[in-house]
Amino acid sequence: MYGGEREVHVTDVPKPSITGSGEALVKVTLGAICGSDLHIYHGNIPISPGKVLGHEFVGVVEDVGAEVKRFKPGDRVVSSFFTSCGLCALCRKGWFNQCVNKATFGFGEYYGDLGGGQSEYVVVPLADHSMEPIPSGISDEQAIFVGDILSTGYFGAERAEIKPGDAVAVIGAGPVGLMATMCAQLFGPARIFVVDMVDSRLEVAQELGGIPINAKEVHPVSTIQEQTGGLGADSSIECVGVEAAVDTAIRSVRGGGTISMVGVPSVVTGEFPYLDIWLKSLTFRAGWCNVQAYMRPLLDLIAAGRIRPDVIISHRMKLDQAAEAYRMFDAREATKIVLTP
Amino acid sequence: MYGGEREVHVTDVPKPSITGSGEALVKVTLGAICGSDLHIYHGNIPISPGKVLGHEFVGVVEDVGAEVKRFKPGDRVVSSFFTSCGLCALCRKGWFNQCVNKATFGFGEYYGDLGGGQSEYVVVPLADHSMEPIPSGISDEQAIFVGDILSTGYFGAERAEIKPGDAVAVIGAGPVGLMATMCAQLFGPARIFVVDMVDSRLEVAQELGGIPINAKEVHPVSTIQEQTGGLGADSSIECVGVEAAVDTAIRSVRGGGTISMVGVPSVVTGEFPYLDIWLKSLTFRAGWCNVQAYMRPLLDLIAAGRIRPDVIISHRMKLDQAAEAYRMFDAREATKIVLTP
Amino acid sequence: MYGGEREVHVTDVPKPSITGSGEALVKVTLGAICGSDLHIYHGNIPISPGKVLGHEFVGVVEDVGAEVKRFKPGDRVVSSFFTSCGLCALCRKGWFNQCVNKATFGFGEYYGDLGGGQSEYVVVPLADHSMEPIPSGISDEQAIFVGDILSTGYFGAERAEIKPGDAVAVIGAGPVGLMATMCAQLFGPARIFVVDMVDSRLEVAQELGGIPINAKEVHPVSTIQEQTGGLGADSSIECVGVEAAVDTAIRSVRGGGTISMVGVPSVVTGEFPYLDIWLKSLTFRAGWCNVQAYMRPLLDLIAAGRIRPDVIISHRMKLDQAAEAYRMFDAREATKIVLTP
Amino acid sequence: MYGGEREVHVTDVPKPSITGSGEALVKVTLGAICGSDLHIYHGNIPISPGKVLGHEFVGVVEDVGAEVKRFKPGDRVVSSFFTSCGLCALCRKGWFNQCVNKATFGFGEYYGDLGGGQSEYVVVPLADHSMEPIPSGISDEQAIFVGDILSTGYFGAERAEIKPGDAVAVIGAGPVGLMATMCAQLFGPARIFVVDMVDSRLEVAQELGGIPINAKEVHPVSTIQEQTGGLGADSSIECVGVEAAVDTAIRSVRGGGTISMVGVPSVVTGEFPYLDIWLKSLTFRAGWCNVQAYMRPLLDLIAAGRIRPDVIISHRMKLDQAAEAYRMFDAREATKIVLTP
Repeated sequence: MYGGEREVHVTDVPKPSITGSGEALVKVTLGAICGSDLHIYHGNIPISPGKVLGHEFVGVVEDVGAEVKRFKPGDRVVSSFFTSCGLCALCRKGWFNQCVNKATFGFGEYYGDLGGGQSEYVVVPLADHSMEPIPSGISDEQAIFVGDILSTGYFGAERAEIKPGDAVAVIGAGPVGLMATMCAQLFGPARIFVVDMVDSRLEVAQELGGIPINAKEVHPVSTIQEQTGGLGADSSIECVGVEAAVDTAIRSVRGGGTISMVGVPSVVTGEFPYLDIWLKSLTFRAGWCNVQAYMRPLLDLIAAGRIRPDVIISHRMKLDQAAEAYRMFDAREATKIVLTP
Repeated sequence: MYGGEREVHVTDVPKPSITGSGEALVKVTLGAICGSDLHIYHGNIPISPGKVLGHEFVGVVEDVGAEVKRFKPGDRVVSSFFTSCGLCALCRKGWFNQCVNKATFGFGEYYGDLGGGQSEYVVVPLADHSMEPIPSGISDEQAIFVGDILSTGYFGAERAEIKPGDAVAVIGAGPVGLMATMCAQLFGPARIFVVDMVDSRLEVAQELGGIPINAKEVHPVSTIQEQTGGLGADSSIECVGVEAAVDTAIRSVRGGGTISMVGVPSVVTGEFPYLDIWLKSLTFRAGWCNVQAYMRPLLDLIAAGRIRPDVIISHRMKLDQAAEAYRMFDAREATKIVLTP
Repeated sequence: MYGGEREVHVTDVPKPSITGSGEALVKVTLGAICGSDLHIYHGNIPISPGKVLGHEFVGVVEDVGAEVKRFKPGDRVVSSFFTSCGLCALCRKGWFNQCVNKATFGFGEYYGDLGGGQSEYVVVPLADHSMEPIPSGISDEQAIFVGDILSTGYFGAERAEIKPGDAVAVIGAGPVGLMATMCAQLFGPARIFVVDMVDSRLEVAQELGGIPINAKEVHPVSTIQEQTGGLGADSSIECVGVEAAVDTAIRSVRGGGTISMVGVPSVVTGEFPYLDIWLKSLTFRAGWCNVQAYMRPLLDLIAAGRIRPDVIISHRMKLDQAAEAYRMFDAREATKIVLTP
Repeated sequence: MYGGEREVHVTDVPKPSITGSGEALVKVTLGAICGSDLHIYHGNIPISPGKVLGHEFVGVVEDVGAEVKRFKPGDRVVSSFFTSCGLCALCRKGWFNQCVNKATFGFGEYYGDLGGGQSEYVVVPLADHSMEPIPSGISDEQAIFVGDILSTGYFGAERAEIKPGDAVAVIGAGPVGLMATMCAQLFGPARIFVVDMVDSRLEVAQELGGIPINAKEVHPVSTIQEQTGGLGADSSIECVGVEAAVDTAIRSVRGGGTISMVGVPSVVTGEFPYLDIWLKSLTFRAGWCNVQAYMRPLLDLIAAGRIRPDVIISHRMKLDQAAEAYRMFDAREATKIVLTP
């Protein structure tokens, strides 16, 4: 649980129980620490000490409310990192992440005050809409990312409007960038350039089929242009959020192309090259993941062996080592840490 | 012809003739003054005095080169305001406005040094690719806008991803905004809000089926939100280019929506609300029109009486009144001026 | 209620009440007789005498179950003609008409045994998913068709893949064909040819913007080809179901075009021109309407005055005149009959 | 050359030369025998003895006409199996295979009377539009299929509307079926079921990532339903053309799904399950390949190592062994035969 800035404590909390008829009680079997948990860790999110953290988790259903139709006790499930109602105007247009009733797990009062997944139990509201059953044959380590960063990578790739034969640039090879590299393949590009400054990450990107470009060694925009006959990539997926990465994402793309940003912007407002965007007739998209729309096909793809998101797990630790795990992740000593209770 | 800043002269120039096998010589029957001609008029475009101006024109083919297959002398034609080769990598992807060989009529050496349409004759290179025949029954005044601002309005509307039943916001009711209002209808929206500050323009917008919002009288973003149950419009089409209009276009749109900007940006770079764009999962597009892709369907729509772009013509003048016409248009005394030789 | 072949009786039935937590009890304010009701009337549907007929209705909510979230007593509503669960694999792909749990109003035991709308009260299961609130300002007569034939016309038009500027052929100008004509306009075609053999229907089609073709007077395929420069229409919408109409729908379309059939096929299997379909690279679609996906945008379009489905109502009768109404409709003495309780 | 039914002769023919300004003379470096060549071999196509056969070929440009802009002598090229003008109404809609001026190589007078590729030289009309340059690093054996069966497989896959995570059924594992299997992967399906009755073909399909189903051993429709939880595949690609295969393709698909047929229909007209298609809201497409639209991205995918069409080549023979090659291919002793001059 959150213990104040850069403090994570492991304590006993009362086992929660179901209070609403649409809820499910899930016994957590695996949790993970996400990059956005570090925003809380750094004290940048309004959250009270004592709140349980964690929004990436899988588990087994232990109890369900009377309205829940898709799940029963004993079902293995993965949850989206947020809940949505499925009934408001934007849910009905398919934009679940814009739901007027949305709430996020383990992110404090301001974001809906749901329980956290770095725990033994979580109550999942609107369970029929927010969870998916895990097919047999898929491990917890494979399924867990469906509820957050794998879907985010997919969302970024889908909105890049990739067509078979295209050249794509993925900016950033952190956990989300690697997921985007994996998911971009689902749209049949000929080449995926992956830009980062850390060799170990670029090696993973290359194993996933990417063409690594180390921005410390070469100029990424020039390199992409050279390798595309001077045109530039057909689209780019921005997975970092800082100014230099956004700039690279925009400048890598050919006339008429698309930039799809999933990195969390590091600024509220910033410079934007309006004239270039207009001259080159570009499309710029940004967004956080519409998870609920992607969980099912992604689980089917994992079950069929087409994508293997668990390759990015670098450390497996116990829940009671959470304090050390947060320290390591914050210090970039780990690519991705999962926690078992 | 251009005579230096804020000077337009009418003089005799030699009749041009065909020099390339793909060219057509067109006797101009109607020309028009476009908002972007004012950029030249104000001295903001690198162009030599003596160059013939004008990129909006229709006419009759007088001669064609040996390669020209679609046209013969006597054909009535409308030309795109720019030429494209149809063979380079981006033309082959359908992005004719990103053609590596593109050139613009009446815009000086920097933009390809083609002749101007505010003249008696123009040579059109790559004629098979850059012109369309005008169906009988369509007047010059109806056809002329297909080569520029009507296609631009359509391009803006198409890229706004309007679906039947949507609410759309058009920002700006100048010539391009009115064309966008007309073209947005082709995608079946329930409502089109049109924002401007000039009542006479808003009246035309209303005749075209728009819901007028005078930004001098009410706050356009609040008004659109009120009328859409607090959601905002599904998409917006920006047709001005200045900061306040871009800001309105972005803020008018609901989560998951699209902003399509066709106004010429008034700045090279400017502030952009990255975090809001990301939180609301928006798509922002800008661009200048890919005319060649739209001329044929737009001519078919005009022939069928579905769109009537000539309603925006406010003044009909003779070519030898061009100096006065430029003065009036620059002084906003006219919505749209067409010129007959 | 159904009284055996070609017999419809009006009798007192007990007022139904809610038994499931997701249900709504609706007091019917307007019902209508649909062409598919005639299949029952002719004795071609397995249904017991005594069953209440009718699947086109609007009304006011009188009671709701505990799970119902979108409706409360007093709300004016229109219901889809069938219910779907929203949770099965095909509902989650957006194919509500392929729901494994679907049931149809007033169609007997074989089709789910729901109550009928030609009555004073109906219980609507899965109410949150199967009904839409009627915006104030829309009359019952405008709203009623959203739950069946207007959505069917829209479904046919949407699946015809119409693009702005296209030429479309609607085969049949009965109630569904007229709705298809209306809805095709939402996709911006230049021309809509409407083929029928009854002048009065073709007159309505023309009022709705169609170009009438009387198949008794001219050969519809030749006429469409002549008027499209020998090409044929870009797509066709088949709204009859009999062999000659299907044949016309296929032969009217240009190479690469689309045929969208919503007419109920009069045969289980029939001849199909495989070689022509292959040579011309055509797309042939058939289907019955995925209503739940279209009710909301169609209501918004009606509210905005963009479509006016009530123009097809030819007769307004009382529910206790139902026997006479069925006789008239069966005898083609009426285009569309609505019934008030 | 064609020598009458089941007779192919190899003889000396005069070297052709360019007569039109848009033509290219290509020295053939590799040809192939296609399944459709057997239609000629069997005497089912109207063609005069003495005509050179072959429509699958790659080569080196030896001469070009004055209008040709994209090619010069020495360029390695692959040609589409047919030529199209790029200027007629259907070419301009992107349907090059519906071009009013199309002509096919090596298919006799009725199909445009172009030369054949099973020869030392071919003249390619409309060269800029009908050929693509072969990137360095791609062998003739990799490039040759781009002009016909690889594009056909891609066309079939693209029109099946496959989405990431889908289950797809490919009916037939002959050369086209294997290409369809390869190309379907570009759209990210979770699973591709491949149905055939020949084990050796199914083994190749499995190497390409397909799930083999031998229709001699199991019922393919039941098997696909079992493996998809009773639903059926999301789409199917028919690559045979005979009635049983078409039937399997239709019955394998879930409600709302798509059947994309590229097999040449064995009948002009045949039975079609109209009612099932309507009840299940299916889309049925058939067509022969719109090659010109796909050559560029497919070459880019081959260059990047994403697809390897040459795996289907079973026999490499010399052009003067053509008679024996036709015999073997007709006797199904070879999967795919390529011929070097």
